[in-house]
Amino acid sequence: MSLAVRQDESAAASPAAEASYDPATGEIRGSVAHTPAARVDALLEAAALAAPALASSSPAERSVWIEAASAAVLEHTDELVAIAEEETRLGLPRLTGELERAAAQARFYAGVALEGSYLDVCLDEAPAGSLARWNVPLGPVAVFGASNFPFGFGVFGHDVASALAAGCPVVVKAHPAHPRLSAAIAEVVGTALSAAGAPEGAHALVVGFDAGLQIVDDPRIAVVCFTGSQAGGMALVERAARRGVPVFAEMGTVNPVFVSPAAEGRRDEIAAGFVGSYTLGAGQFCTKPGLLLAPAGQGYAAAIRSVLDGVAPAPLLTEAIAARFSETAARLQATVGADVPVAEPPSGFTVAPALVTARISDLTEGSPLLEECFGPVAVVAEYESVDEALEALARLQPSLAASVFTSGDPERDDPGAASAVRSLIPRVGRVAVDAWPTGVIGTWAQQHGGPWPATSRPEATSVGAGALDRFLRPVTVQNARAGLIPAFVSRENPWSIPLRIDGRLHLPHPASALETETTP
Amino acid sequence: MSLAVRQDESAAASPAAEASYDPATGEIRGSVAHTPAARVDALLEAAALAAPALASSSPAERSVWIEAASAAVLEHTDELVAIAEEETRLGLPRLTGELERAAAQARFYAGVALEGSYLDVCLDEAPAGSLARWNVPLGPVAVFGASNFPFGFGVFGHDVASALAAGCPVVVKAHPAHPRLSAAIAEVVGTALSAAGAPEGAHALVVGFDAGLQIVDDPRIAVVCFTGSQAGGMALVERAARRGVPVFAEMGTVNPVFVSPAAEGRRDEIAAGFVGSYTLGAGQFCTKPGLLLAPAGQGYAAAIRSVLDGVAPAPLLTEAIAARFSETAARLQATVGADVPVAEPPSGFTVAPALVTARISDLTEGSPLLEECFGPVAVVAEYESVDEALEALARLQPSLAASVFTSGDPERDDPGAASAVRSLIPRVGRVAVDAWPTGVIGTWAQQHGGPWPATSRPEATSVGAGALDRFLRPVTVQNARAGLIPAFVSRENPWSIPLRIDGRLHLPHPASALETETTP
Repeated sequence: MSLAVRQDESAAASPAAEASYDPATGEIRGSVAHTPAARVDALLEAAALAAPALASSSPAERSVWIEAASAAVLEHTDELVAIAEEETRLGLPRLTGELERAAAQARFYAGVALEGSYLDVCLDEAPAGSLARWNVPLGPVAVFGASNFPFGFGVFGHDVASALAAGCPVVVKAHPAHPRLSAAIAEVVGTALSAAGAPEGAHALVVGFDAGLQIVDDPRIAVVCFTGSQAGGMALVERAARRGVPVFAEMGTVNPVFVSPAAEGRRDEIAAGFVGSYTLGAGQFCTKPGLLLAPAGQGYAAAIRSVLDGVAPAPLLTEAIAARFSETAARLQATVGADVPVAEPPSGFTVAPALVTARISDLTEGSPLLEECFGPVAVVAEYESVDEALEALARLQPSLAASVFTSGDPERDDPGAASAVRSLIPRVGRVAVDAWPTGVIGTWAQQHGGPWPATSRPEATSVGAGALDRFLRPVTVQNARAGLIPAFVSRENPWSIPLRIDGRLHLPHPASALETETTP
Repeated sequence: MSLAVRQDESAAASPAAEASYDPATGEIRGSVAHTPAARVDALLEAAALAAPALASSSPAERSVWIEAASAAVLEHTDELVAIAEEETRLGLPRLTGELERAAAQARFYAGVALEGSYLDVCLDEAPAGSLARWNVPLGPVAVFGASNFPFGFGVFGHDVASALAAGCPVVVKAHPAHPRLSAAIAEVVGTALSAAGAPEGAHALVVGFDAGLQIVDDPRIAVVCFTGSQAGGMALVERAARRGVPVFAEMGTVNPVFVSPAAEGRRDEIAAGFVGSYTLGAGQFCTKPGLLLAPAGQGYAAAIRSVLDGVAPAPLLTEAIAARFSETAARLQATVGADVPVAEPPSGFTVAPALVTARISDLTEGSPLLEECFGPVAVVAEYESVDEALEALARLQPSLAASVFTSGDPERDDPGAASAVRSLIPRVGRVAVDAWPTGVIGTWAQQHGGPWPATSRPEATSVGAGALDRFLRPVTVQNARAGLIPAFVSRENPWSIPLRIDGRLHLPHPASALETETTP
């Protein structure tokens, strides 16, 4: 797991604590004690004890808990954002926006549970007796959040809120890039959940590499969520596979961009947008567009380079990320035979953004040009023909997202763009048309996932209504009688949720009980 | 993989062919040539080329293909059942029924696709632009069928039909227990699919252990389905995990039965049902009830033993299964200190059914008593208190299914049965109340799966409408315009399928286009 790298480098700090660094200076500004093994065990036991209570709670009850935690996070915005800024240097506007979105997302997930489709209740009268099928929560979830989204994929981010909404207790491993923020959010959220009546053990935080391994290996953990590097994700998948635990690992990818020849009139807008997207948050987005394929002869590489000249260096989140960035950017440049500029000794973990210009023929299978580089670097390659570009896209590993830029005129035929969308759909989780892949809004129709190596579970998403599904599995009870199964699993439909009865999907009238809309 | 055992034992046959054995005599009655590596490669290439055609086909088109294949199988019932009987000795009535059910199931999966919920189409107008999300097929599926269901989990069984219905090409590995039947079904199905207009490459069969490894390791295979032993399933999961391919492995489990003290008046019926269920098909069901917990003092063990005395020996499917059965049954009996009867040298792969009587205190974690034994053997343990029985159930590994027997009187309070159902729901895929776990009817509300080690994917099922979901993943297109995404992903709803629009689920009127039932 990649955390090992991080830990070795923090030898200056106490081995019993996670040091909190300021990325702008590289200085240690505090620390958070590692959670001792016995305490981790107690937290796991509390989560296991909370699991049946959460499983039998209603979406309405859980909604109250989640609303309370969400409100508490918002109430502490200034305090939490200040700590986040000290530990990440992502900037107050971005961090404030991210906190507010995370709070809103949590309420969204509670609303998804209330709508009730996630339960997928099916009732059949079969010859061998009745069958009732519905989704049950899997049990305690271990969450390994991301370095780059301290709120969105942190202690009360997408993974945590969707797991709670689905009825699963959560044990979060604090990310070493922001231990003080993790502890502060855990305090705010834990207090709010308890005050709102959530079971003790519904939410916990553990700190330290060893604590992380302990929760992955513990039989009381039923699912693992991870957001981070491919190396870290696959190490976790392999480890958890030994005991058959499902792991949703969302890993970094290249996220290619195809620019249609028909987009010619928008070249400067696209060049500016590309640089803005790949240097956003110092390039530390898992949806960062890492490779742009543009038509030759339209001056894209030069236009992009000229925009890039105006972008200032920025600190990366950790020393390890900064070191890997410099190394990978140098390897990328060496691959295409470009000179590697000798960097000035940076302040803290600061790096300068970079651009690598490649030939389409450089984009061969196994080339470093087709691998993710976390940080503000991207590859631009100019193609002679659309077919040549599509062939290059087909050689890429699957990605979380991709973009296709068209003429921008919906009335104008753009066969290159249409072909690119068609060829990207089987290879990515999301295709953004005339939009950049960074920025993943959490709605019903969002998909943030994709085939391996984008994620370890192609059918899953970590953003959007489908995020709850990662924490559920169906169960069928045959010949169930009232009293043997939960009361909501019933043709009476007391929760007014969508029901499938004898194969036919029924929606509740808003104000009344079950009725089918297909009745004439 | 367990197939290795089987292959080593068939050394008498040509190394280039899979021998076809008669389990009643142990004699070789024919063989099927192993598929050479170059031919496997050509079949994989055909599957890869067929994948986009299947992905862009409509459920209505695929329904025509599947109906044709299903009809062709039925037309060849006599011929196929005769071969199946020679290779399995499961009996003509059972095999005929299984073939007919498999043909009907295939049509059911085509109907599930036509209903359209499986596509999960969501359309949002979000601030950052529209989002359209729907499910796309994953691509070519490798299917490793089961020894014990030559039709139901064979060359045109649940896995194959649900994958085709979902829009995925299928490459089936012939099970070594029935190579001639596999080849015969593949011929019938392949001919019918082609005649009905299915793309070449939609369905293929490969034969031989090496061919099986080749398809698991090939990058053109996007999903693997396996039905069989835990050892075989986990070997496959580990192997496929190296390249991030999802594996649905459905493995054998103990499938416990709890008999409530209130069921006392039904003892003889339950004893007879238990023996009938665990010796059905010579005990070769993955849902075989392997452990029965009955109240002490009601004479269950004696009643069961007396029924068992009337059950004749029966041939198991393969020499390897028969050898493992004898070995495991002996180990079970040694665990409880009982004498192991010295068996007469059997004819073919024939074994006598067995019963092991254990104390509740013998059911400790890691005991062989808590592991599956494929074949006609089961464990009965009598409990002193319901709590003692529930504690024993909690020590069991998760199972595919479980049964709970009650007083049978829905008016009578039965707290023991209610507690048992509650405690089994988190640990199994299906709980059958007053019914045996064998017999898995394929309807909308069926669930044939469960937490590991029952399966490698707790959210999946291999029987019932949910079986299609194993072969799908969601994709989102942002700012999609007409012409860039499939025509059915549209508010116009040309296929009249359930749609979620801006978070609200809508059902089509049967005769008209989209309309919401929630309109007053």
